[in-house]
Amino acid sequence: MPQITQTGRHFLAIPGPTVIPDRVMRAMNVPMINIYEGPLIETTHSLFPDLKTLAGTAGEAVIYISNGHGAWEGALANTVHAGDEVLVLESGRFAVGWGAMAAQRGAVVHTVAAPPRRGVDPAMVEARLREDAGHAIRAVLVVQVDTATGVWNDIEAIRRAMDAAGHPALLMVDCIACFGCVPFEMDAWGVDVMVAACQKGLMTPPGLGFVFIGEKAMAVRHARGCTSAYWDWLPRTDPDMYYKLFCGTAPVQHIFGLREALDMIAEEGRDAVFARHARIAGAVRAAVAQWGSGGPIECNITDRAARSDAVTTILTGGIDAQELRRICEDDLNVTLGLGIGMEATSTFRIGHMGHVNEPMILGTLGVVEMGLTRMGAEFAPGGVEAAVAAL
Amino acid sequence: MPQITQTGRHFLAIPGPTVIPDRVMRAMNVPMINIYEGPLIETTHSLFPDLKTLAGTAGEAVIYISNGHGAWEGALANTVHAGDEVLVLESGRFAVGWGAMAAQRGAVVHTVAAPPRRGVDPAMVEARLREDAGHAIRAVLVVQVDTATGVWNDIEAIRRAMDAAGHPALLMVDCIACFGCVPFEMDAWGVDVMVAACQKGLMTPPGLGFVFIGEKAMAVRHARGCTSAYWDWLPRTDPDMYYKLFCGTAPVQHIFGLREALDMIAEEGRDAVFARHARIAGAVRAAVAQWGSGGPIECNITDRAARSDAVTTILTGGIDAQELRRICEDDLNVTLGLGIGMEATSTFRIGHMGHVNEPMILGTLGVVEMGLTRMGAEFAPGGVEAAVAAL
Amino acid sequence: MPQITQTGRHFLAIPGPTVIPDRVMRAMNVPMINIYEGPLIETTHSLFPDLKTLAGTAGEAVIYISNGHGAWEGALANTVHAGDEVLVLESGRFAVGWGAMAAQRGAVVHTVAAPPRRGVDPAMVEARLREDAGHAIRAVLVVQVDTATGVWNDIEAIRRAMDAAGHPALLMVDCIACFGCVPFEMDAWGVDVMVAACQKGLMTPPGLGFVFIGEKAMAVRHARGCTSAYWDWLPRTDPDMYYKLFCGTAPVQHIFGLREALDMIAEEGRDAVFARHARIAGAVRAAVAQWGSGGPIECNITDRAARSDAVTTILTGGIDAQELRRICEDDLNVTLGLGIGMEATSTFRIGHMGHVNEPMILGTLGVVEMGLTRMGAEFAPGGVEAAVAAL
Amino acid sequence: MPQITQTGRHFLAIPGPTVIPDRVMRAMNVPMINIYEGPLIETTHSLFPDLKTLAGTAGEAVIYISNGHGAWEGALANTVHAGDEVLVLESGRFAVGWGAMAAQRGAVVHTVAAPPRRGVDPAMVEARLREDAGHAIRAVLVVQVDTATGVWNDIEAIRRAMDAAGHPALLMVDCIACFGCVPFEMDAWGVDVMVAACQKGLMTPPGLGFVFIGEKAMAVRHARGCTSAYWDWLPRTDPDMYYKLFCGTAPVQHIFGLREALDMIAEEGRDAVFARHARIAGAVRAAVAQWGSGGPIECNITDRAARSDAVTTILTGGIDAQELRRICEDDLNVTLGLGIGMEATSTFRIGHMGHVNEPMILGTLGVVEMGLTRMGAEFAPGGVEAAVAAL
Repeated sequence: MPQITQTGRHFLAIPGPTVIPDRVMRAMNVPMINIYEGPLIETTHSLFPDLKTLAGTAGEAVIYISNGHGAWEGALANTVHAGDEVLVLESGRFAVGWGAMAAQRGAVVHTVAAPPRRGVDPAMVEARLREDAGHAIRAVLVVQVDTATGVWNDIEAIRRAMDAAGHPALLMVDCIACFGCVPFEMDAWGVDVMVAACQKGLMTPPGLGFVFIGEKAMAVRHARGCTSAYWDWLPRTDPDMYYKLFCGTAPVQHIFGLREALDMIAEEGRDAVFARHARIAGAVRAAVAQWGSGGPIECNITDRAARSDAVTTILTGGIDAQELRRICEDDLNVTLGLGIGMEATSTFRIGHMGHVNEPMILGTLGVVEMGLTRMGAEFAPGGVEAAVAAL
Repeated sequence: MPQITQTGRHFLAIPGPTVIPDRVMRAMNVPMINIYEGPLIETTHSLFPDLKTLAGTAGEAVIYISNGHGAWEGALANTVHAGDEVLVLESGRFAVGWGAMAAQRGAVVHTVAAPPRRGVDPAMVEARLREDAGHAIRAVLVVQVDTATGVWNDIEAIRRAMDAAGHPALLMVDCIACFGCVPFEMDAWGVDVMVAACQKGLMTPPGLGFVFIGEKAMAVRHARGCTSAYWDWLPRTDPDMYYKLFCGTAPVQHIFGLREALDMIAEEGRDAVFARHARIAGAVRAAVAQWGSGGPIECNITDRAARSDAVTTILTGGIDAQELRRICEDDLNVTLGLGIGMEATSTFRIGHMGHVNEPMILGTLGVVEMGLTRMGAEFAPGGVEAAVAAL
Repeated sequence: MPQITQTGRHFLAIPGPTVIPDRVMRAMNVPMINIYEGPLIETTHSLFPDLKTLAGTAGEAVIYISNGHGAWEGALANTVHAGDEVLVLESGRFAVGWGAMAAQRGAVVHTVAAPPRRGVDPAMVEARLREDAGHAIRAVLVVQVDTATGVWNDIEAIRRAMDAAGHPALLMVDCIACFGCVPFEMDAWGVDVMVAACQKGLMTPPGLGFVFIGEKAMAVRHARGCTSAYWDWLPRTDPDMYYKLFCGTAPVQHIFGLREALDMIAEEGRDAVFARHARIAGAVRAAVAQWGSGGPIECNITDRAARSDAVTTILTGGIDAQELRRICEDDLNVTLGLGIGMEATSTFRIGHMGHVNEPMILGTLGVVEMGLTRMGAEFAPGGVEAAVAAL
Repeated sequence: MPQITQTGRHFLAIPGPTVIPDRVMRAMNVPMINIYEGPLIETTHSLFPDLKTLAGTAGEAVIYISNGHGAWEGALANTVHAGDEVLVLESGRFAVGWGAMAAQRGAVVHTVAAPPRRGVDPAMVEARLREDAGHAIRAVLVVQVDTATGVWNDIEAIRRAMDAAGHPALLMVDCIACFGCVPFEMDAWGVDVMVAACQKGLMTPPGLGFVFIGEKAMAVRHARGCTSAYWDWLPRTDPDMYYKLFCGTAPVQHIFGLREALDMIAEEGRDAVFARHARIAGAVRAAVAQWGSGGPIECNITDRAARSDAVTTILTGGIDAQELRRICEDDLNVTLGLGIGMEATSTFRIGHMGHVNEPMILGTLGVVEMGLTRMGAEFAPGGVEAAVAAL
């Protein structure tokens, strides 16, 4: 690894991959072991119940050696085929990307866009689905949180909208940016497929993607087949064939790392983890509001209820966000997220997901305020105090 | 990780995943960093030239977050489509598995089987291809080394057979079990697609698959498209789009681990690495020959020229190989490979690939001999001495 | 290790042992190697010049396997013998402790105490030494920074005072709490013996103590002998006898860790390291001043020039410092230093030495302010903003 | 750390510091924590009972931050003073070194030398002590195993000899080279002081020394004092003063490493650990005997009962042991111990202590045999087979 001069611990405040806890790194730092027998097998099997609990489902789960995009494809490969129609609920960049992946598979992609700087509007979804009287649409693709815009979509309400429209499409949700950060109740909310990955809320180095599968989605797989052996859900959900769980060699070190991360979540408690994320996110928003009271800084998402607890996207107006990020990273030991799919010079993002707490976020906000000060930016100081007060 | 009582260092002599060098583990034990800018980017780009050198190609290379089976699919997704015909050259278990993956994609799979306990016969390949006068066969799938049988196939000769038959099919070779262990000259030998992975000769925890792509194969991709965004070669070979190199989030820690492993290979020297594998493999075969001089033990592959330098599959006749493996693993701190696709009670395997040397293999062989002695097996002692002499 | 539930990275703000950089931990995580030949030898020899540069001396240096108290004894064992008189310059707890160690050796200990909440007064030193017309006092013991009180003593001025008194005693300085954090010029300032350790400014797990030896001190060793083989400077300063450098087995992993830490300091630059410490300390003092503007909180050291840049000791008056520390540690992921040798309920300390930077200190200060708020303490908010402004 | 080109795992077969188990390294790879409160305290206190069990004593134990030589001094500083007489039982290099340390303290050192290439003769000890009718000798210093010669001394018999002589001297035993490898029953055998360290049988990086203290020795400390604060047993055996247990800052990471190592010993079982060492040592001796049946190679210790189970010192006669060691280390990945205090060109040592097992020792012996073969040395092959048979 190219050595970077360190002057104290560097803070990574990007919206994933996130800070890896020492415990997880240590758990992965184990020698290679037998992959056919012994502790690896038991540990692997122990992951699935915990993942399902976190997803709120009694359905099936598969673990891919892949990143989140791989898990997207794992979801599509079992459900969406050439010529199928899908409806993408656009609220930033990622559902659109997932839709493009479906299009590459040969699907016809329709889109309902959220209102500017807001979450998906369930009423628009309902209306659009009512138009599809023939039920040509096979699947609705949506993210719970969009890493680019920082929006949180109300999945439960979208489900109700689909039900109100009486539409049988599968509801497929991308929780990559917020799995393990905010509540998700797959079964209670009527979600058919959920996609996630390990490198954000689950605090594990990138390399594992997850798909959670409800009964209706599994029935589609059975009915329509899957032309990909790698993504196929069937062998991966047969507990008697260990070698097929990962379609070949298991990701040994990642399995032990994920085990440790899930243990950490269990020790803290699922609800406590969610509460911590909400608390930290509230502090970030308080700081942004204070800064913006004296200048152009503001949250990208205008609807307060739709601001995610995992990542905050911040608009800086005439303040050069690229320069701000450069100062923070090069001079002040904090790496902020760059704007993606938005104007890089007037957007930055703060990730507050996974292994994050009060001193980490206060340190990050303090440095942003230092950066703004150094730039002579138009803003109201006091953001960190506002965050302290909010916490 | 469930703790295992350790009484000295455990030896892992399975044919992959293999022993991870301390240097590689240490290189992976790094904090998460920015994935859009900085050292990760440079390090990633540095991998490709070294991988290509090891593969003997000036063509393209892609790195998938996947295991070897994923890389198989990465190769097929760009070249083989529903209705295509492929020819599998069976010499154990793995080319067959790759062929099954093509079949799941909708391809028609033909097979030429190697003679029992021998490598693929180029003459049979030539004959079979001549039968395909209409050139319906799009691709020939073969492994260089089969991890199950321990066979090494002469890829250069197979290419000559294809040329002799004047057949235009792509030659696609799986080197998963031996990449970085034995010579491979992709361009010189006329191979169109080569598939490998990181967890054997490359000494890195499982999680990365590789596909090397020749011009002819890339032309097929351009001509016929790819319905999978994840496996698609095109964005992954565009050096200007870092984010697309891995179709999403990069496998950060694995990138640093692989970098270290490639550095180790470069320090030792590619040819020296190959020579070391040949030397160690020779010692294993000498021991097997000695043991077998007084009983049923023998190498599975009868053709000496076709015994691989990466893994040796050993037949034990009436000696219970399951019991031998149990004694070695539970009582003597050595894990041997089990027979796969063969009778488990009369087969075991010794992996000698990657991070392996004289004392490791002598320790392993010594323990096998101890195990045979404890079982009262019918064999001739002196295997370790034979190995010492061979080395 | 007993697992602690982690909810984000824990901040350790005690005045040592300090946060260990990832690089140092990784450098120590190496397998055991030959201790008589090879890289260990070269690496060991490379440490001494860098340590001496940091200490500002062309004299000798020894590295003990010990903590700082061990290094104290290493200094005394070569210079102070039963019946000798020593003068302790008291400015907190640690010079007194060192003096007690001399007393246990049989020395007669005299003390000059600094004025309350101030550093040692050179004039008082001069006066006391003038009283010792017979030059019975063999050594003057003083700390540069006292970890308990947070005071910084002006060593250069103390030397001048000794010179003004025309007194030949050795000047022996304990820099344990600030070596690598603040300037120290052993030769230029006329210091005869300097004692330090690795676990504070040098960012390495505890286990190494250092003594730097000027010519005059070494002459004392030669003249008067040393009854301890372990602490004896002579074999430890003979570069031709590796085995004697550590009086037996070398501290292998620590040697590699210290090497990495010294590399980090060299990369950043010695002066830049000192400037960083001064900057961070200034931020802490700004926060304390702000908090204290509305209540009893104040720096223990009243003389601004004598406040150390490595640790700040804070008095809380009627605010229960024990409770504050408990809230910060148990609820808010920051461990503060407890008061030592002072009233624990009205004192706490913030360590800001070694691997420390802006976001770390802002996060720490933010949490202290949260803690004060939760307690309903009498204080003026705005401390973090004051720190941001100071930085 | 200077990188060494690795071609497979390097084997370290020196008699300490020994191979560190992955588990121990991982346990040490923990972030710094509070040293005044919490898990460090509990873990520290948990070490003492386990260490005492291993030493077979209900007495006291202290843990020094030091190497073994430091522990020697820790033993002497509390018991032997200037002008005291001590009796060194010479059986190699280390008791002599300990005696030299006593001499530096001002003690008068007498010596009883073991017969050449044998252990200490209890009858000679008895005779010598009887000569000391005035009981001027305060302490008898002896090693259980001498790392240089490979001898094992019968401590129980030496105690009986002292008793037979009716001599009141303290019996002080250095077990550094074999603590945790061979049985030691401090109380049952009547040992007054036992000295050990962590880097051999205890499998932990060098940095901790131990002294176990019987009642009689502690009474000496009380009666005669201790002029060293660092080595003083009294504060270090007061369980209510954590900070004094290590005379200052605790060796945090080492404490967690030692805890893991003691857990490993407990899991395997103390007697099983000893039996393993005896088994492995027997294999080494069988190989040496075989090699020597055709040439000059032989065990240094001629008395079979006095050959230690922790280290074997081997004489090579006219075979150049330096060259053998060079070939094994540079070409064959095994580091052998060099002869110390003996002729380096005709002596080498094999350490078989701590984290050692069948495949490790067979690999080592196999490489030695390879080295001898490459040199064209005069020896009888078949040593590894003899070892296999012995195991």
